[in-house]
Parts: sequence; structure tokens; C-alpha cells
Amino acid sequence: MAITIKDIYRASECIHPYIHHTPVLTCQSLNDRVNAQIYLKCENLQKVGAFKFRGACNAVFSLTDPQAEHGVVTHSSGNHAQALALAARMRGIPAYIVMPENAPAVKQNAVLGYGGQVSLCEPTLEARERTTKDLERTTGATLIHPFNNERVIAGQGTAALELLEEYPDLDVVVAPVGGGGLLGGTAIAVKALAPASRVVAGEPELADDAYRSFQSGKILPSVNPTTIADGLLTSLGDLTFPIIQAYVDQIVTVSEKGIIDTMKFIWERAKIIIEPSAAVAVSVLWEHRIDLTGLKVGVILSGGNVDLKKLPWMGTRVV
Amino acid sequence: MAITIKDIYRASECIHPYIHHTPVLTCQSLNDRVNAQIYLKCENLQKVGAFKFRGACNAVFSLTDPQAEHGVVTHSSGNHAQALALAARMRGIPAYIVMPENAPAVKQNAVLGYGGQVSLCEPTLEARERTTKDLERTTGATLIHPFNNERVIAGQGTAALELLEEYPDLDVVVAPVGGGGLLGGTAIAVKALAPASRVVAGEPELADDAYRSFQSGKILPSVNPTTIADGLLTSLGDLTFPIIQAYVDQIVTVSEKGIIDTMKFIWERAKIIIEPSAAVAVSVLWEHRIDLTGLKVGVILSGGNVDLKKLPWMGTRVV
Repeated sequence: MAITIKDIYRASECIHPYIHHTPVLTCQSLNDRVNAQIYLKCENLQKVGAFKFRGACNAVFSLTDPQAEHGVVTHSSGNHAQALALAARMRGIPAYIVMPENAPAVKQNAVLGYGGQVSLCEPTLEARERTTKDLERTTGATLIHPFNNERVIAGQGTAALELLEEYPDLDVVVAPVGGGGLLGGTAIAVKALAPASRVVAGEPELADDAYRSFQSGKILPSVNPTTIADGLLTSLGDLTFPIIQAYVDQIVTVSEKGIIDTMKFIWERAKIIIEPSAAVAVSVLWEHRIDLTGLKVGVILSGGNVDLKKLPWMGTRVV
Repeated sequence: MAITIKDIYRASECIHPYIHHTPVLTCQSLNDRVNAQIYLKCENLQKVGAFKFRGACNAVFSLTDPQAEHGVVTHSSGNHAQALALAARMRGIPAYIVMPENAPAVKQNAVLGYGGQVSLCEPTLEARERTTKDLERTTGATLIHPFNNERVIAGQGTAALELLEEYPDLDVVVAPVGGGGLLGGTAIAVKALAPASRVVAGEPELADDAYRSFQSGKILPSVNPTTIADGLLTSLGDLTFPIIQAYVDQIVTVSEKGIIDTMKFIWERAKIIIEPSAAVAVSVLWEHRIDLTGLKVGVILSGGNVDLKKLPWMGTRVV
């Protein structure tokens, strides 16, 4: 069943008591640099530091009480893991998070800090799926996929909904694309609320599965991609790809240097902390790979979770 | 002539077209850490990255046309220098900025970038005052002192005005204190709009002139203070001290470690970039040197200008 703007409105009402209504910031020096008027929707300032909390919250609070009491389960070592753990804690239900045993301790601890229960498994697709399925069966928990889930996609769309409520006359809305949950939800919202606006996705050229899939008309996954934008390593899902085909106007790839330069500029001039994956969206403008001169451009800053001791413009020696 | 809330309202109207109405952010993990409800007034997200732009703007746009055409002059190597340069550029008048010749190139370039004209002088008080006076005489420019100026103080008070318009029932408002412009303006605003609220200042214990002056009843300047909070090295002025005596409830000193720990926590969890001077205000709660348990506390985050290659939790080797 197709996701529509009604699902996004419903998600917005559902998650309203739990999320931050994040600010939209402007930065004159950024506008001057890219020759456009940029409106930064700051999901880096969302709870758990990422838009992922919107989708997780919508999924968790849309469960019936009998479903909910058995908890939720997912496999993720990223922002979705923390988001689901916090949303579950807010509803007072268990969250089982499957992570590869080589996931950094800091990520495991973040999930534990939000009250999630971590199950480690071998770092293979097969082990991850088996462990997740085992947990579903033994606990009765509901699987909440990080992006290939209708409630999650609708939840992610609420960021663009808020952005357009505040700035209805944007010419373009840009979002990064990994699995496609944020991009899909964003595209549905934009095309319903501002049909004349273009939806553009930013993707690292070193993890360009969405770009290639979009061009070829079929899902072409990335094989072991490596990019500093570690939130965008996943490939599109069978739910998100058709939405992107239907509603997204263009996917633009960006360089690793562009991502780092953009990230540093935003830190220095906009005074907010964004992760490389968020910088990818701004890099679409920064690198001028498409011409957006003079336009009003909304950009979804997806998240702000970075290790402050490993910044890409610093050496590696840490005191 | 005493500065009143009317001057702050007037300043607010005057600067409204030029400034950012900065957001007020909350952060659950910060609240949990300090056992209070904190409302962060984000002047780090203000233009030029600091509250200083409010006061500079009010001073520049309050000049008559005949005064204004000769420009403005100040001595500062910090945020006030950039703020005055930008405000002057917005009015289309010259800004003459006196800086010691040992001021970092990055600070000189920042002023030049906003269209200011930099005059270097020997790094002594005498040379600074002589150079400033010479510029006043030869150009006819109006001196805009960084804090000991009524328009500047009224301008800085507009941050607290906005904070209280959004959250009228704060129990306490905390601001950092250096020269006292921000603290003075904040205190006037708070005592007029929310008389039951306490006004508390945070100051580095290594630059505790305001604390000692407040206790003793007379201005006791710091002698060559050294603190990481380099925005708070200046001592109180004869305009700001009486305001602080009249309206501030308490000045609390904080440790260098507290400043750094707080700064890092805010970066990591609130996802915003604050400079050490801004962290000083949060440190008042972080170090629990006074009991604010369970209270609603507004905190003015004064600025976000830091060198991203010299972070206090990193080594010094830079790639």
C-alpha cells in the first residue's frame, strides 16, 4: 500500500509529543559561497542526534498495545539503533538491537545508555539475519527495519513537512540517500505539499548505488563501499526504491573532499555539528555539480553523531 | 543615565532586521547530568557567531546619519571587532578596528572579511589607546567600546529579552561575565520582565575579577589572567559594574577542567559548537557549585568561535 502525505501527517501527530521540532537555520557565508539561499533543517539537533528518531518513534508508537508489550527488534550499529532504543524506552517496552561483534564500543554503549538490549553476532549478513529472526521468535518482538518499513519512511518525511510548513516556497529540497528512508519520506512530502519543487538527493560517489539504480531502473547494490559518510553505506530497499523512482528528480554524487570541506565549513560558520552523511547533502551545492544559482534550497541535515576525537581535518594523535 | 528595559525594547526594534532571532534548545542528557531543566539561548548561532553582534548593531544603527558617515572605531581582537565590522558594513559606513600587532592572523582576516579596516599597534594599553584616539581624531569616527557603552549593553540585553518572551517562567538566568556587557544587559532584562528570577553569572576562577569586585564592592581588575575562556579576560567597566551590583544575585567561579568538560559535552550531546566562554555559563550548573536542582534555568550561550584545529581535547599535531 503506497505511502502518502496522509501517512506523514499521521506520523507527525503521533510523534509530536516525543520529538524536537528542530530549527531551520540560515548562514549568510554559506549562501555567499554556493550562490543560493539555503535553509538548513537541523535534524542533527533532533533527539539522539539524527532524523532516525522520527521514523523509530512513529514505528514504536504506532504499535497496538498487545504488539508493543513484546518489544521491538532491529539490526543496526548506527543512528537507528539508538533511535529505536530511546523510542522504546519512552513507550516503556524492550528494544532488542542486533549488532556485529566488531561494532565500536561507543556505539554499543550508546544503545545501552538509552536502555536498549544489545545482542552481538558475527559480522556477516547471514548471522545478522539469523540472530534477528531468533529474537523475533523467542521474544515476540516486532521487527523495525532501519528504512524498509512504511511507518519509518512516513516518520522520516515529517522533517520535510516541518520545513515546508515554515518555508512553503522552496525551489528545491535536498536530502542525502543511503537506504532511502529519509529521501523517500522527504520526496513524498515535497511532491504533495510543493509540487513545483524539485527533490534532489546527494550521495557519496564512493557509495553510489542509488545513483546507479536510479539511472538503470533496477536496484544495483554497492559492494563493500567505503566513504567517510558512514551513514550512507547501505543500499536501497524494495520499498524505498519505487518511491524514489516516482518522486525524486535527480541524484547527484559528491566527492570525499567535498564532503569533508563542506562539513568543516558548516562547523566553522554555522556553528553546528554535522556528521559526514549530513554534509553530503550540502556538498551537492558546494561542488556545483548541478546549477542551483539564486534558488531557495531546503537541505535536510540528517545527523550530528561524530567522534570528536577523530575529526577528518585533524591528525590522529589524541591526548 | 541609567539603562532600562525601555532601552532594551528600543534596541530590539532597532536591530530586528539585521540579527538572527536565535533558537532556544533543550538537551535531555544535559538536564539529566545537572538535575535541572536547561534552556540554551544559542547566541553561538548569532551572526559572526556571538551575542556581540547585537550590541554592535544597536550602536551602529543608533547613530545619526551625520555621525554615521564618519564611521565607527574600536579596539578589540575578539568577537566585538568582527561584530562591529559587519554591522558597519550593513549600514554602509567604515569600521576602523585597532588590534595589537601580535593578534592572530585568523582574527585579523576575519575582520577584513567583514570589510573592516585593521590598524595594528604595539601590544600595550598605551599604544592601543593612542592609536584609537588618533583614529577618532583623524576620521571623525565614533568610538564603540566593546562593553562600556550604553547602546552596546542595551543591545546585549535583547538576547535575554527573546529568551524570556519564549520562556517567561524561568527560575534562574545564567550568563558568563567578562567586561560585563552581556551580563549587565541580561540582568536589566531579567529583573524587569521576571522580577522573581535570579540572575547568576559564571566566571573562570583564573579570571575572577568580577567575582572579587562583586564581593568587595569596588572594581578589582585581573592582572594578566590566563584562562581557556579567552572571551572573558577583560575586567569590568565603570558602566557595567554598577548594573551588576544592582541586579545580579550571584557570581560563581568555575574551574578550567569544568569549562572543557562542559564544552565537550555540549558539542557531543547538543550538537552545537560553543566556545569556552559560553561553556563557562553551563559550568555553573555542571560543577554544582550552587544548588539549582529541579529549577528551570535559562543559559545564554555567548558564542561559538573556536579554532577547529586546536581543540582542548585533541593533541596539537594537525594534518
